[in-house]
Amino acid sequence: MGEPHPTAIKLLEGILEGNRVALARGITLVESSKPADQEIAAHIVEGCLSGAGKSLRIGVTGVPGAGKSTLIEHLGLILVASGNRVAVLAVDPSSRISKGSILGDKTRMDKLSRSPNAFIRPSPAGETLGGVARTTRESILLCEAAGFDVLLIETVGVGQSETAVYDLVDFFLLLQLTGAGDELQGIKRGILEMADAILITKAEGNNLDSALKAKAMLELSLHYYPDKPGGWKPPVLLCSALEGTGLDALWEHILEFKAMGLQHGTLMENRRNQNLKWFRQSLDSGLHNFFYSNPKFKKTFDSLVQAVESGTISPFRAAGQLIRQLE
Amino acid sequence: MGEPHPTAIKLLEGILEGNRVALARGITLVESSKPADQEIAAHIVEGCLSGAGKSLRIGVTGVPGAGKSTLIEHLGLILVASGNRVAVLAVDPSSRISKGSILGDKTRMDKLSRSPNAFIRPSPAGETLGGVARTTRESILLCEAAGFDVLLIETVGVGQSETAVYDLVDFFLLLQLTGAGDELQGIKRGILEMADAILITKAEGNNLDSALKAKAMLELSLHYYPDKPGGWKPPVLLCSALEGTGLDALWEHILEFKAMGLQHGTLMENRRNQNLKWFRQSLDSGLHNFFYSNPKFKKTFDSLVQAVESGTISPFRAAGQLIRQLE
Repeated sequence: MGEPHPTAIKLLEGILEGNRVALARGITLVESSKPADQEIAAHIVEGCLSGAGKSLRIGVTGVPGAGKSTLIEHLGLILVASGNRVAVLAVDPSSRISKGSILGDKTRMDKLSRSPNAFIRPSPAGETLGGVARTTRESILLCEAAGFDVLLIETVGVGQSETAVYDLVDFFLLLQLTGAGDELQGIKRGILEMADAILITKAEGNNLDSALKAKAMLELSLHYYPDKPGGWKPPVLLCSALEGTGLDALWEHILEFKAMGLQHGTLMENRRNQNLKWFRQSLDSGLHNFFYSNPKFKKTFDSLVQAVESGTISPFRAAGQLIRQLE
Repeated sequence: MGEPHPTAIKLLEGILEGNRVALARGITLVESSKPADQEIAAHIVEGCLSGAGKSLRIGVTGVPGAGKSTLIEHLGLILVASGNRVAVLAVDPSSRISKGSILGDKTRMDKLSRSPNAFIRPSPAGETLGGVARTTRESILLCEAAGFDVLLIETVGVGQSETAVYDLVDFFLLLQLTGAGDELQGIKRGILEMADAILITKAEGNNLDSALKAKAMLELSLHYYPDKPGGWKPPVLLCSALEGTGLDALWEHILEFKAMGLQHGTLMENRRNQNLKWFRQSLDSGLHNFFYSNPKFKKTFDSLVQAVESGTISPFRAAGQLIRQLE
């Protein structure tokens, strides 16, 4: 890397002072695909690294309509009222299609966005999940360097955004909405195992009965899973944004999780593992791109994919054939 | 590939005639790490490809003591009695340590091993999961070319052998043993979602009550998962090898699964996807090995892993740095 660009120096200074405008501009550079912007972003990210890592990173997932934005706004307001600085980010690999409108619609977090101790970032217009994961991870570093001590990272859109967010956060919160009848069918494959807590939203009025029933069923189901690292047992909690109940209890559980994670070292271990995982994934995809940009390799690859699909060659021998071509 | 070795021609001929000695020798060559053997094995595998693919591949998993060998022997005997030819393989990435003794102890399948229509192969002395997966997959092809129409593939040992077997088979059977008390704690993370059926073993005598209770709990838990491809709903079944109950019902379910899979095309689609998955995995690990055998790359990689772990560099930028070194 060359000498830092004046813009990088200025923005970094602003970010380290906690300036939200500088932070927003820094994140825009991180998200930019222009080489000149990326150069500046690299300096900013590097300058933020030593001040980063001090927040609690909380992922919030759940199907559309589960109340993610509402939860984030209400929890965020409680947290800023008690002296925290709260940043809200989103991971949305589908935002290119949905035009990032989901979290971009800031009016849905109207009150929180007016707090001087909150920073809300619309979802980035990422093209690939890997790209969005990278920009989100670097945005996390910038927010932390700017002194935000609680990060709420929302999964938006379809596909694998839950897994990406899971691999970016310390605590993974699954929101579950109940209704009449077969209310838990909407749980995605594999998601229960990732949750550090399940929050049943809109547990109020006519919904309360089915919420309590769902809580019992979920607790039974969680019983099948082994404990999380450090012995953490994911609780199933209820809340009602309408009645203002359940969020203090949620926060207490999150703080308990954090205390346990610090005590057992699992919080830091998880972050180390996440870093290594992203490194390996990013390296794998980089190696792929490196090869597929070679027309000869690409051509052989394409014909082998067909042969493998149709079963006329063993997949292992096909891979070996391609590798030998490199030598 | 050069001209086929005389041994390859002879063994291939034997395998295609259904000769079990030739099959066993062919698999030994597939498992060999000697280049000369691998050359012969390549010809044999290639010669088997067109005759392969016609069996039903069934994976059998469950914790040690769940009764995998007993189930395989009893089910195998029922199947050979009704005219099927049954081959039993094992995936055991830990067998280098356990010396492959688990399935190697053929006396545990004493009756089945004496049937002329059964072929039982001790677990290979594989070194890595990828290696074991490759040899098992090629052994499957050889067994199929030899006319075995039901393959039972057992997971043995620790680690990720379940996932490997899952990616090698058409039908994935989870054995679950119940006992007094908290009987289902032993279910591994993610395994319920992979199962096409769950079989509660030793559902007899004093165990019957807890088996029925476990069945109800598992059915409830499976309720949370979306249906499998083609709309298949994994059943929870009971069996007792001692009393000889439950295995006919299990086989009927497996045949129903097969019929549904053929009707909806999901059986063949699953195999295509498995082939592609092994191809990509094998290619990724091949690319890795290709690079890590380069001392300069390896040195940079090692130092970057440390920096990534300690958080002093962004994992994405670390990967980019390594990739740029190739250019």
